Amino acid sequence: MLLLLLRRAGISGLQQASRFRSTARLCIRACSADDSFPSQHPSLTSSEGNSGSKGWRVMGTLLGLGAVLAYQEHRCRAAQESPPLYTREEVSSHNSPKTGIWVTLGHEVFDVTEFLDLHPGGPSKLMLAAGGPLEPFWALYAVHNQPHIREVLAQYKIGELNPKEKAPPTSETSDPYAGDPLRHPALKVNSQRPFNAEPPLELLTESYITPNPLFFTRNHLPVPHLDPDTYRLHVVGPPGRKSLSLSLDDLYQFPKHEVTVTVQCAGNRRSEMSKVKEVKGLEWRTGAISTARWAGARLCDVLAQAGHRLSESEAHVCFVGLDSDPTGTSYGASIPLAHALDPEAEVLLAYEMNGQPLPRDHGFPLRVVVPGVVGARHVKWLGKVSVEPEESCSHWQRRDYKGFSPSVDWDTVDFDSAPSIQELPIQSAITEPQDGETIEAGEVTVKGYAWSGGGRAVIRVDVSLDGGLTWQVAELDGEKQRPRKAWAWRLWQLQAPVPAGQKELNIICKAVDDSYNVQPDTVAPIWNLRGVLSNAWHRVHVRVTP
Amino acid sequence: MLLLLLRRAGISGLQQASRFRSTARLCIRACSADDSFPSQHPSLTSSEGNSGSKGWRVMGTLLGLGAVLAYQEHRCRAAQESPPLYTREEVSSHNSPKTGIWVTLGHEVFDVTEFLDLHPGGPSKLMLAAGGPLEPFWALYAVHNQPHIREVLAQYKIGELNPKEKAPPTSETSDPYAGDPLRHPALKVNSQRPFNAEPPLELLTESYITPNPLFFTRNHLPVPHLDPDTYRLHVVGPPGRKSLSLSLDDLYQFPKHEVTVTVQCAGNRRSEMSKVKEVKGLEWRTGAISTARWAGARLCDVLAQAGHRLSESEAHVCFVGLDSDPTGTSYGASIPLAHALDPEAEVLLAYEMNGQPLPRDHGFPLRVVVPGVVGARHVKWLGKVSVEPEESCSHWQRRDYKGFSPSVDWDTVDFDSAPSIQELPIQSAITEPQDGETIEAGEVTVKGYAWSGGGRAVIRVDVSLDGGLTWQVAELDGEKQRPRKAWAWRLWQLQAPVPAGQKELNIICKAVDDSYNVQPDTVAPIWNLRGVLSNAWHRVHVRVTP
Repeated sequence: MLLLLLRRAGISGLQQASRFRSTARLCIRACSADDSFPSQHPSLTSSEGNSGSKGWRVMGTLLGLGAVLAYQEHRCRAAQESPPLYTREEVSSHNSPKTGIWVTLGHEVFDVTEFLDLHPGGPSKLMLAAGGPLEPFWALYAVHNQPHIREVLAQYKIGELNPKEKAPPTSETSDPYAGDPLRHPALKVNSQRPFNAEPPLELLTESYITPNPLFFTRNHLPVPHLDPDTYRLHVVGPPGRKSLSLSLDDLYQFPKHEVTVTVQCAGNRRSEMSKVKEVKGLEWRTGAISTARWAGARLCDVLAQAGHRLSESEAHVCFVGLDSDPTGTSYGASIPLAHALDPEAEVLLAYEMNGQPLPRDHGFPLRVVVPGVVGARHVKWLGKVSVEPEESCSHWQRRDYKGFSPSVDWDTVDFDSAPSIQELPIQSAITEPQDGETIEAGEVTVKGYAWSGGGRAVIRVDVSLDGGLTWQVAELDGEKQRPRKAWAWRLWQLQAPVPAGQKELNIICKAVDDSYNVQPDTVAPIWNLRGVLSNAWHRVHVRVTP
Repeated sequence: MLLLLLRRAGISGLQQASRFRSTARLCIRACSADDSFPSQHPSLTSSEGNSGSKGWRVMGTLLGLGAVLAYQEHRCRAAQESPPLYTREEVSSHNSPKTGIWVTLGHEVFDVTEFLDLHPGGPSKLMLAAGGPLEPFWALYAVHNQPHIREVLAQYKIGELNPKEKAPPTSETSDPYAGDPLRHPALKVNSQRPFNAEPPLELLTESYITPNPLFFTRNHLPVPHLDPDTYRLHVVGPPGRKSLSLSLDDLYQFPKHEVTVTVQCAGNRRSEMSKVKEVKGLEWRTGAISTARWAGARLCDVLAQAGHRLSESEAHVCFVGLDSDPTGTSYGASIPLAHALDPEAEVLLAYEMNGQPLPRDHGFPLRVVVPGVVGARHVKWLGKVSVEPEESCSHWQRRDYKGFSPSVDWDTVDFDSAPSIQELPIQSAITEPQDGETIEAGEVTVKGYAWSGGGRAVIRVDVSLDGGLTWQVAELDGEKQRPRKAWAWRLWQLQAPVPAGQKELNIICKAVDDSYNVQPDTVAPIWNLRGVLSNAWHRVHVRVTP
């Protein structure tokens, strides 16, 4: 993360510097005759503030020239009068370059409009916090939480929050969703009740591991309140054997198994499918996918302890969640027993997510994690495990999360005619630049993610800047995966010259997995009435500044 | 097969009958006043020939009215004079409707030009034998080898082979391929030396199991002559343990394991790729794929007996064939050890193919069969098995059978940058109608095959008659596969009305496997310099008779 910031600072900072240098110098000279700036090389030596000259140089390196000079520019404006007071509502209305961009940190209010283009991480990331508090973002990206960055910010202070300002109103108690946890403000919400949200594109591939508060959330029902001390997992035994009732402490006694797994919702990128023809489902963009390091007991160990073995005939492990609707219907799903019992498949009953207890939105205190398999089978708030001759009878196993021909509509669909989705097909998407963006001529950086189901490794990502006529091979970042256990995504990027004279680019990515499966070219031929399995080439159209 | 023929006879026979009935009747009446044909229902009661009236009825049912009536038509022409003599060369020059279509059976020569449209299996299948002997076809499709069919044929006799006719010249002994076996004349040969050939489209999906003589043949080198009595398989043991030297009898002592497996060459459908841009490789059409019932010892059992176990680090099982070029280079390939040792993967050292000892072209006396994996790893004429820390050093493992981006050419290719092909991606193709064919208005029957690698089952085939605008779901025939072990193809068909007024159809098929992987829409974006992995939608253009 720090390296990324430094690299970004190095590029955008220098570009900005040439633009802002003259203005900044004028301002700096007018402001403090004591500051000394060699005309050719701005190695800052100011003795003001808490940072010594060494600190300044570090900061110059860290944030880039642009940010440093902008700091000098804004020092000139620092107000001495007693601060004006604002309400949260007033702050939240300043959330665009047009209205001005305000943010809060503690009780202080800042107008960062002019800092927007100087933000080393890029303006789009700062915009995620526009009109609200910085804390949730600084908590994720801890590099911000340092004295010299606080100083930069201080120059943009315009006032404070009114101390009489009330806390935001609490939810009504009759609302079944009233007990849902607080969520990170950066999440792009597709549905509040049940809560469904995805990380913004700007942050989705910022790190290989998705921070817990940004991990996409796919809830089907209200989030249950579960007491870890009284929590029990009910594991039904085979005929003639007792069932197990396992506390969290019991589960901790099984060997702790850790694995990095990408989870993807079957509906990821549904919004592209619904542009072809209306579908039923949440309008997921490209963010219904995230990656975490999960830890817990292996399902095969727990099933073995309960006395289950591989049966001759096909059988299924059925999971029931402790989330339920007002009629008492719980979420449920199943996976084949052979898959559950295969130690190589690494199916987990997970109690940790990125070294923390599971967040409530992600199944506290226990969820299923089925590497390489659609998110719908990773049952959260797990209450019961049983082995059955048939798949789970749950709506979500039998009447949802299945793929159909484009010719099938709601009048003709026969849900029994298609298998439930388990392993997902090869997938990739572009996260930078974004569709509709305007980019500079010269060089373009294209970034994104790629992943395939079933432990199949991503072996290549092809990127086209000309709508698919020619292709370039992207550089794969992220962890190299174990053979047959490529459970996690690869991040990728391509830096390429923008062809001279080009006014726009039609950027496309397509990935290949180690079974040499590829993504289909277009969306319409894979359209299906539920809008699942949307894995056509991802296309982004950008304009190029002349 | 018989059922298929009957079905076909029922359909095409009736169509033909309406066209030929009046002509046939005239002829029949003129020919034999003793024959009695009720005017409304032609239940033949001729007392001539060896078949009684019951036999005639059976034959009517078997071949359809058209064929029966045509038989009557041609009885009229049977010549009594001493037969003219022909050379094989003369016969072979009569191989098209323009020149007339001659075939031989034993020493007899037949002109079957007028029978072409009456052939219950369709004219295209009879054309496969045009200009040559019928025996290789009747050997495969034994339904022909019956007295009443010989009788039908007798009516078309035009002479005999000249008894002075020499046998075809034998090959030169200096030719390393001189010892290659005789092949079935129906095979479409892509290369004689080494021999590479595919079954004709007309026969490819005639039966779920491909008859041995028609199974596609992919040889890299001359076929070795191996004596089953002295044959030994050398299995290198782990460090500190003796190697095994196994005779065929030793191999028969292992539990015999049988499994139906489709084998596909990585170059199947290469000819479509080379239309986009030149590639290096044999011009395979859609027939570099076939299905057989294989039997042999499981590789995991043999490896276990040699003392091999799953290792912590990645390892590979390397196979060396006993075929070699004049410099002594043998064919070789490898698969991961984890795959080889997994009993569920059912990797075989096969000595039987469809209940027969392996034919010489298919690896006699022993070959590897790796279900779900590219044909290149199914090493034939197996001589040696060893476990190595790296993949086989063979050219065919390291410098061939890999996929690359369309941007990579022979100047830029880095073979180390791509993994060797193991599991193949989802595939399907149309075998009927054929590209360029003219079909009748009314109803069209589209047939083909679909298969996916890695044991992934084909769950759906979509067919379009309008170039991909709309889709219909085909009916899947063939054996339902075991979960996670769908090693064999599904045959499929769709019967659909030809949209009224349509002068041509752009027929497309695309398949989906149970990981919901789909085929890409077009060829160009998956083009690669070796022309492998050609699995775009299969497209066939046909004209419709007005």
